[in-house]
Amino acid sequence: MNALPHLASATGGLPSSVRWAQLILEDRLRPGDVAIDATMGNGHDTLFLARCVSPGGHVFAFDVQAAALEETRKRVPAEMTTLFHGGHETMCERIPAEYHGRVSAIMFNLGYLPGSDKSCITHTQTTLAALEQAIEMLRPGGVLTIAVYPGHEGGAEEGREIAKWAAQLDSRRFEVQHLRPVNRSAAPPELWAVWKTAPAKKSPAAGNSPESLPS
Amino acid sequence: MNALPHLASATGGLPSSVRWAQLILEDRLRPGDVAIDATMGNGHDTLFLARCVSPGGHVFAFDVQAAALEETRKRVPAEMTTLFHGGHETMCERIPAEYHGRVSAIMFNLGYLPGSDKSCITHTQTTLAALEQAIEMLRPGGVLTIAVYPGHEGGAEEGREIAKWAAQLDSRRFEVQHLRPVNRSAAPPELWAVWKTAPAKKSPAAGNSPESLPS
Repeated sequence: MNALPHLASATGGLPSSVRWAQLILEDRLRPGDVAIDATMGNGHDTLFLARCVSPGGHVFAFDVQAAALEETRKRVPAEMTTLFHGGHETMCERIPAEYHGRVSAIMFNLGYLPGSDKSCITHTQTTLAALEQAIEMLRPGGVLTIAVYPGHEGGAEEGREIAKWAAQLDSRRFEVQHLRPVNRSAAPPELWAVWKTAPAKKSPAAGNSPESLPS
Repeated sequence: MNALPHLASATGGLPSSVRWAQLILEDRLRPGDVAIDATMGNGHDTLFLARCVSPGGHVFAFDVQAAALEETRKRVPAEMTTLFHGGHETMCERIPAEYHGRVSAIMFNLGYLPGSDKSCITHTQTTLAALEQAIEMLRPGGVLTIAVYPGHEGGAEEGREIAKWAAQLDSRRFEVQHLRPVNRSAAPPELWAVWKTAPAKKSPAAGNSPESLPS
């Protein structure tokens, strides 16, 4: 009865943006699915995604820093992952064509590699190029998440550009939501979630209430 | 395997703001808890909350319109609910003192009563007065949710005032998050969630990842 709630941070509070991304994706991913970690970093999300799609699934992951691949290799099952040493803006080129339009989840966790050279950050132009590719890689019904760090150098500008990009996405093809922590003095990460629309397969789940009416 | 995800709308998309509020609260509420529906309307959320705290819990609900109480009475278990015919800004006055500071969840779903006189909308000044009372009624660890309808007459202004109110909440006492749908031509409801901080009871749940680090 008194267990911590599931949709919560480790202290029982509201989940962080990074945790919300995981909660949304782990709820949707199924064994056998294909996922992309666009910002490998130390491999935590690569491993997270691999666990979500195991057995039978696959995760493609990208990073421009060799150190990221080294760290990630220690962590993740080799047979389920393909680690690319290169920018996420090479996604379409490097992931085999048979997977294009068949990816169930893509994670972007922008900013710098923890514990490394902070001058090596994601850059807005390559990020936007990668996001354009990512939404095409998604299958209908797939979800893209983007954690943005407005507190990092360049992060506020990157956040504004992503906001513009998200706002112009075709509403017939994509649903987008933006989550941000509010009353903080620092600028904690914000989350963007993009769902690629898919035709409904079945009747609404029991217990769902009308979606768009005031009570 | 192919069942609809839990954190989803009825079409498999991202949950609406109203549905997110329910998902967050149903995950946290436990039998025996006390909850408040600050905007009874037709009683859907009163019933929702009653189900979440059953058995042994109680729901207090408010509405200024007699029609709302009539509709709600048809829907909810009388022994678990107290329906007040009056504005939510009378919350502190009307809910017995023994419950003050002991409420686990409070829902605001602003706007007008569906199917009724649209000139009878929530008003920003009384809403803000009610919100001030609501955060004091919450127990530590309790959550307040506010669905705001910027597309309704007066809703955009109400949204701006709530944004200001949320931004000034003491970050030591409250965590606040704001969720909004992005690429829509209409102005769909937005969600504010306020968690009243509580001392951690136990170690982090297994499977939770570091909360604030880029990957």
